[in-house]
Amino acid sequence: MGDHMPTLPARLVWEPIVRAALLEDLGRGGDRTTDAIIPADAFARAHLVARQGGIVAGLEVAAAAFELLDARITVEFLAKDGQQVGPMTTLATIGGPARAILTGERVALNLLGRMCGIATATGRFVEALAGTGARITCTRKTTPSLRVLEKYAVRAGGGHNHRFGLDDAVLIKDNHVALAGGARAAVERARGAVGHMISIELEVDTLDQLRDVLDLPLDAVLLDNMDPATLREAVRLVAGRFATEASGGITLETAREVAETGVDYLSSGWLTHSAPVLDVALDIVKSRP
Amino acid sequence: MGDHMPTLPARLVWEPIVRAALLEDLGRGGDRTTDAIIPADAFARAHLVARQGGIVAGLEVAAAAFELLDARITVEFLAKDGQQVGPMTTLATIGGPARAILTGERVALNLLGRMCGIATATGRFVEALAGTGARITCTRKTTPSLRVLEKYAVRAGGGHNHRFGLDDAVLIKDNHVALAGGARAAVERARGAVGHMISIELEVDTLDQLRDVLDLPLDAVLLDNMDPATLREAVRLVAGRFATEASGGITLETAREVAETGVDYLSSGWLTHSAPVLDVALDIVKSRP
Amino acid sequence: MGDHMPTLPARLVWEPIVRAALLEDLGRGGDRTTDAIIPADAFARAHLVARQGGIVAGLEVAAAAFELLDARITVEFLAKDGQQVGPMTTLATIGGPARAILTGERVALNLLGRMCGIATATGRFVEALAGTGARITCTRKTTPSLRVLEKYAVRAGGGHNHRFGLDDAVLIKDNHVALAGGARAAVERARGAVGHMISIELEVDTLDQLRDVLDLPLDAVLLDNMDPATLREAVRLVAGRFATEASGGITLETAREVAETGVDYLSSGWLTHSAPVLDVALDIVKSRP
Amino acid sequence: MGDHMPTLPARLVWEPIVRAALLEDLGRGGDRTTDAIIPADAFARAHLVARQGGIVAGLEVAAAAFELLDARITVEFLAKDGQQVGPMTTLATIGGPARAILTGERVALNLLGRMCGIATATGRFVEALAGTGARITCTRKTTPSLRVLEKYAVRAGGGHNHRFGLDDAVLIKDNHVALAGGARAAVERARGAVGHMISIELEVDTLDQLRDVLDLPLDAVLLDNMDPATLREAVRLVAGRFATEASGGITLETAREVAETGVDYLSSGWLTHSAPVLDVALDIVKSRP
Amino acid sequence: MGDHMPTLPARLVWEPIVRAALLEDLGRGGDRTTDAIIPADAFARAHLVARQGGIVAGLEVAAAAFELLDARITVEFLAKDGQQVGPMTTLATIGGPARAILTGERVALNLLGRMCGIATATGRFVEALAGTGARITCTRKTTPSLRVLEKYAVRAGGGHNHRFGLDDAVLIKDNHVALAGGARAAVERARGAVGHMISIELEVDTLDQLRDVLDLPLDAVLLDNMDPATLREAVRLVAGRFATEASGGITLETAREVAETGVDYLSSGWLTHSAPVLDVALDIVKSRP
Amino acid sequence: MGDHMPTLPARLVWEPIVRAALLEDLGRGGDRTTDAIIPADAFARAHLVARQGGIVAGLEVAAAAFELLDARITVEFLAKDGQQVGPMTTLATIGGPARAILTGERVALNLLGRMCGIATATGRFVEALAGTGARITCTRKTTPSLRVLEKYAVRAGGGHNHRFGLDDAVLIKDNHVALAGGARAAVERARGAVGHMISIELEVDTLDQLRDVLDLPLDAVLLDNMDPATLREAVRLVAGRFATEASGGITLETAREVAETGVDYLSSGWLTHSAPVLDVALDIVKSRP
Repeated sequence: MGDHMPTLPARLVWEPIVRAALLEDLGRGGDRTTDAIIPADAFARAHLVARQGGIVAGLEVAAAAFELLDARITVEFLAKDGQQVGPMTTLATIGGPARAILTGERVALNLLGRMCGIATATGRFVEALAGTGARITCTRKTTPSLRVLEKYAVRAGGGHNHRFGLDDAVLIKDNHVALAGGARAAVERARGAVGHMISIELEVDTLDQLRDVLDLPLDAVLLDNMDPATLREAVRLVAGRFATEASGGITLETAREVAETGVDYLSSGWLTHSAPVLDVALDIVKSRP
Repeated sequence: MGDHMPTLPARLVWEPIVRAALLEDLGRGGDRTTDAIIPADAFARAHLVARQGGIVAGLEVAAAAFELLDARITVEFLAKDGQQVGPMTTLATIGGPARAILTGERVALNLLGRMCGIATATGRFVEALAGTGARITCTRKTTPSLRVLEKYAVRAGGGHNHRFGLDDAVLIKDNHVALAGGARAAVERARGAVGHMISIELEVDTLDQLRDVLDLPLDAVLLDNMDPATLREAVRLVAGRFATEASGGITLETAREVAETGVDYLSSGWLTHSAPVLDVALDIVKSRP
Repeated sequence: MGDHMPTLPARLVWEPIVRAALLEDLGRGGDRTTDAIIPADAFARAHLVARQGGIVAGLEVAAAAFELLDARITVEFLAKDGQQVGPMTTLATIGGPARAILTGERVALNLLGRMCGIATATGRFVEALAGTGARITCTRKTTPSLRVLEKYAVRAGGGHNHRFGLDDAVLIKDNHVALAGGARAAVERARGAVGHMISIELEVDTLDQLRDVLDLPLDAVLLDNMDPATLREAVRLVAGRFATEASGGITLETAREVAETGVDYLSSGWLTHSAPVLDVALDIVKSRP
Repeated sequence: MGDHMPTLPARLVWEPIVRAALLEDLGRGGDRTTDAIIPADAFARAHLVARQGGIVAGLEVAAAAFELLDARITVEFLAKDGQQVGPMTTLATIGGPARAILTGERVALNLLGRMCGIATATGRFVEALAGTGARITCTRKTTPSLRVLEKYAVRAGGGHNHRFGLDDAVLIKDNHVALAGGARAAVERARGAVGHMISIELEVDTLDQLRDVLDLPLDAVLLDNMDPATLREAVRLVAGRFATEASGGITLETAREVAETGVDYLSSGWLTHSAPVLDVALDIVKSRP
Repeated sequence: MGDHMPTLPARLVWEPIVRAALLEDLGRGGDRTTDAIIPADAFARAHLVARQGGIVAGLEVAAAAFELLDARITVEFLAKDGQQVGPMTTLATIGGPARAILTGERVALNLLGRMCGIATATGRFVEALAGTGARITCTRKTTPSLRVLEKYAVRAGGGHNHRFGLDDAVLIKDNHVALAGGARAAVERARGAVGHMISIELEVDTLDQLRDVLDLPLDAVLLDNMDPATLREAVRLVAGRFATEASGGITLETAREVAETGVDYLSSGWLTHSAPVLDVALDIVKSRP
Repeated sequence: MGDHMPTLPARLVWEPIVRAALLEDLGRGGDRTTDAIIPADAFARAHLVARQGGIVAGLEVAAAAFELLDARITVEFLAKDGQQVGPMTTLATIGGPARAILTGERVALNLLGRMCGIATATGRFVEALAGTGARITCTRKTTPSLRVLEKYAVRAGGGHNHRFGLDDAVLIKDNHVALAGGARAAVERARGAVGHMISIELEVDTLDQLRDVLDLPLDAVLLDNMDPATLREAVRLVAGRFATEASGGITLETAREVAETGVDYLSSGWLTHSAPVLDVALDIVKSRP
């Protein structure tokens, strides 16, 4: 897993998330505790420490929580996003005005813990799938307003991203099919409406449904809630015509068995909606008035 | 638990969260799938169904995801926030333009599943504490930008809220004490700086620390990472002078033992940062062109 | 062209554009002229009239300019987006408070004229390509902040959309290739970084470049600034492996010759950055105090 | 034309336009192509080149597109806004991280091409009017949300600006007159409502209308859709009482004839709604990993 | 004063001010008091009552504070903006959900009291100037973010508005003159830079300064800090060439004497920055559960 | 009063207020006067001068008005917030581009004058109460959108803050009591709904009302519109059970008499809604081209 080099999008895209998080926490009155107790000219140094082992994601995001509070903050990174670290690893050192460090702590940790948690959970899936050729991918079951960070955390963990939203790819689900009067009609309307740079994926729940759409101009097929035997037969039927994706209640325990059916992708909403946060803390290591 | 009547703040406060979530999902191009496949004049009816049992929270929030997309959407609530429901309970019926129902589905479920998950987890703590007099409270370890909804979900589950942010109460932690040169100095500065409507809580990690601050003008004391025996002694020392709150790695398994020490509050970050979502789904039950 | 049924994305996506346009025009003081001269209780009826013939796009958008100013405005549409109309066609009737009609006029016309202009220009390309099987597509050379409306106008004119932005598809241009150390390296890095729902297109400028990449996992190839003979040979070389797109200085005059080379798509920045607006006007037809 | 020294308003006013344009292009996921292919530590140097001759406008605005993406970007200007340049003129050199240069390219060019196009078109009118004493002015037919930049581009081209919006001057048009029950009533109401720093202009379509308002307290009169002979008579009638402005279908071909009637101003919506963009490109000239 | 018919700009312009004020007051958690105590289905009726006599301004603005909280609120206006009312006059009746009435009360009163205060203060100046032909006008010394409402309140009180901001008129002050190297240079640069719809006013502090600029193309002259005798001489010198405005420490006591010098306008920053609020209260008159 | 060390919250919280104020003043077109007259490369130095004596508040806020316009601005503070200064005291020196100094002047002074005015008025109350043990506190009668700055100005003047908004403390007023069916029910509902960090205050208007609530779990009691004798009896009845606050028409003249009744707090809306601004001016002291 040492060769992950996940790229965080331009700061312009995600800095507003950190700013909004700080403003949510600061409220109208700011950090009453710190402002009352800590002198404006007190300086401190602190460590961001992963108390549990896992995969790192979000160091720049966490650093921004301090930097947005005070331009004099300096951050030295001791680990990299995408890196597997052991328990009690110091990930970064933060130096600067003590007020900014104390005020930004919770927002930094809320973001970093969540992102590391997702990356770590993704990494476990990647391990479970090792050697099968299958890839783990996330879904749109992300936290409202944090999608860009959570999708990135999945990549940091070695996973792949599914579409970012409703407008960058077509995913025709059972409800669309039902309301359109059939899969064929749905796919044809979609193909006619979108340009050549938009991929189309269709959900099928049974092998019969799959057989009916094998000749359609699809890029991928979502095999929903199929057991391993059915999945294996589905992969055989598709025969490389388009990418295959298994979904529906996949867990770390079942992932490998699913992967061994030959599907190209396993998708998991759990990665982003329920992965436990990684325990990351801020330790003040030195201070001077 | 049937007497919870949690109150959601004025819609003006939380509607922007739903709007932002929809815009995040719609991107620049909108729902390419639905727009291509579903006619503008198709109407549908759908059920919001809790597939797992749990405590409901967020029905109005979920409804807003559809209402913001189309003013013709109507929602009938079949359950109430704060209510314990069994598996496969229909929580609400959504009627209106099929496009709005399909486009809003994911955002509605992302919010509702998360809020029900937090309420349900809180409810389990409430059960565990039944009869002890102790209360479960959340922390500031919430999802950035969702704090108002997550705090509400805790209330819906029967829990209490700690402060909403850095400006509505003073919580003096170990780092503040260290940088201020002692707990006494910290509390005095805080008391002098804030008005009579702001509460002050102080974190102590040992009984010695606690003994040193018993005469200070505090509203509450945070007993961090103490074992049950120490907690019991701490409660005895405080002797009702101020509220007592236990924190640090409290789980459903350990909660009752902690509560039986006599503390007034148990606080848990896990409630908001790691409670698993409740499985809620949208089922289309009827459609007409 | 009568069967275009372009779909405007959910109003949530584009209403902010209309609102911002109104606020830009209203400034801090509002419509000083109308507010001073026209009584608050004066009502009027007006026609939106296309003075030139062309293809309609943006009627709902224009209507929103009036509706956002006063909820009592009613709009009756007499034409549809995507429809070809002759000169002096009444497109819609606006009724309601005279102030709102006069105040919203310029914003409504600025948006409608621009959108109809793009749709009309697109329609001319569609005509020029009739029978060739080639399609006209727009680019990212759109007006800042109006992309969603301009992309829609292209669809209303019968054209197709290229990617909506930098995040929904990969387009590897000459500069990327140069900085990556070759097309092969660039494509491989991109393929490894994006999921299965993201399409990849590569720009090539010569047949030699094209030959070198025929075995790469591409979805489309952008044939930039090639003359018709070279394009024809490029199409022959690609042989259906991936979609072909011609770009570079394509005009209405040259479009058919380019299309007859067999390329799948012609892309034109001119459609969105320089198509002349369609002359649309607002005529007051009736008023009462 | 070498003495234009157009002044761009404070950056605080227009930087949000550039920021919004970047965010529109970056979407939720950022520049997938560049992020996947170009290393974070690659540096490059690029030229902004005017491929066509014209008048420059918007160099600082274009530079901001890169600067907002990365603070390490440096821009050296080789031309000035308001300057006439020949084809293939290098306008500026951009140096810094290759990612920022590639990611910002399209937004920079979309803004710069449009602004130079307007300035160049304005400059042609200025030439056509040379020696007549008449001035060319723009209207409110600008692109929604870009008015400040387009008004500036007109100034850069040597033109003048009409009012910026509905609140900074009164322009009484035919519809206002009709709804107010006559021009006299309209002007009196306006004069009574606005302070001494607000100018008032009245549209008249015929000489008879003009004769009726010669005694009113106007600052300017808009002579709409009059032929040259009528305009000449209108100017004679006004006799310097207030400024005269000709409008209605004025083109580069007819501008001089209109100006020679003696009017003070010619106004043209075409300048901002339909002037073709100037062809400006970004050429990478050097890169290092 | 009964014939004031001040016009409030389109709601689109000022509603965001009310929304922001409500959000500032609601914070993250909403109205904890009301939400805890008042049932969601309790209805009430309340009166907005002017406890002091004065001139009304802002009734629609105050109503919006309730309407934005709950669409079921109804407001009946019993007075009109611009109207002089006696003490203990009921201005409006508010009916609807009790929560919305209690939660919106403070924001409604903060806005209404301030606007009525400004209108009332303005009205006193208008009375003081009665019969002199001089008019009272406000300045840019308004409350940040409330300018549109405060300018309107001045109009409601019978006063006139000076420019709305830095972009809608030119006001050349002593500092501009000093930095430009003289008044003549400053005026010429300004006249060359702005179009025909922008007025220009010049500040002069002495009669000598005034004599030097009598031939310049000005629309108004600001006579700053002159005593009545000097003002009278200044008015004589100007002789109707441009409007005259007296400024500098004008109070209700000195206003008439200043006006009798023959100046056209008196301007007062005090109107908007220091006029005391009018005492307006909300009385609950009826409630039902 | 020399020991006030008021702390301004993190700049992230209040900088948006300054930015919005600048944008309100700049409008769409920016500072037309300065941009036309003052060369871009002119530099100047200016003094912020308190023309009246008073207590300083808002120096950093005023400085931000210049800094946001141009990063080259430097500000040297010659006084401190919380400091009492005499008339004609220079508070700060501003150096940098002349345009930024002239353009930012009005916004800086509007904010600084208002904040110093509130601090000064507060200081007079503090003096009046000297030795009584009572404290002066502000209310929620603040200027919409400026609450954080006005609350800070009160602290700078030596006063205390009441709650910041509707969500950080419970204040049960007469209307709540009436609608809840009594004070006891209201307090119980509130106590049950909010956590241990939220204070509860109850308004009582008579001694009888007070007697009925002496056993309730309150943090403070608001004694509204009581005369000194009644207040004294109320304080005696409360006997230290909770904090006592007197409100209702308290003026500088009556404050001491009220304080001598023994109440803990006096609250005054006048401090923030009607305190006259302090006269602060900007003097250009040196300029070079």
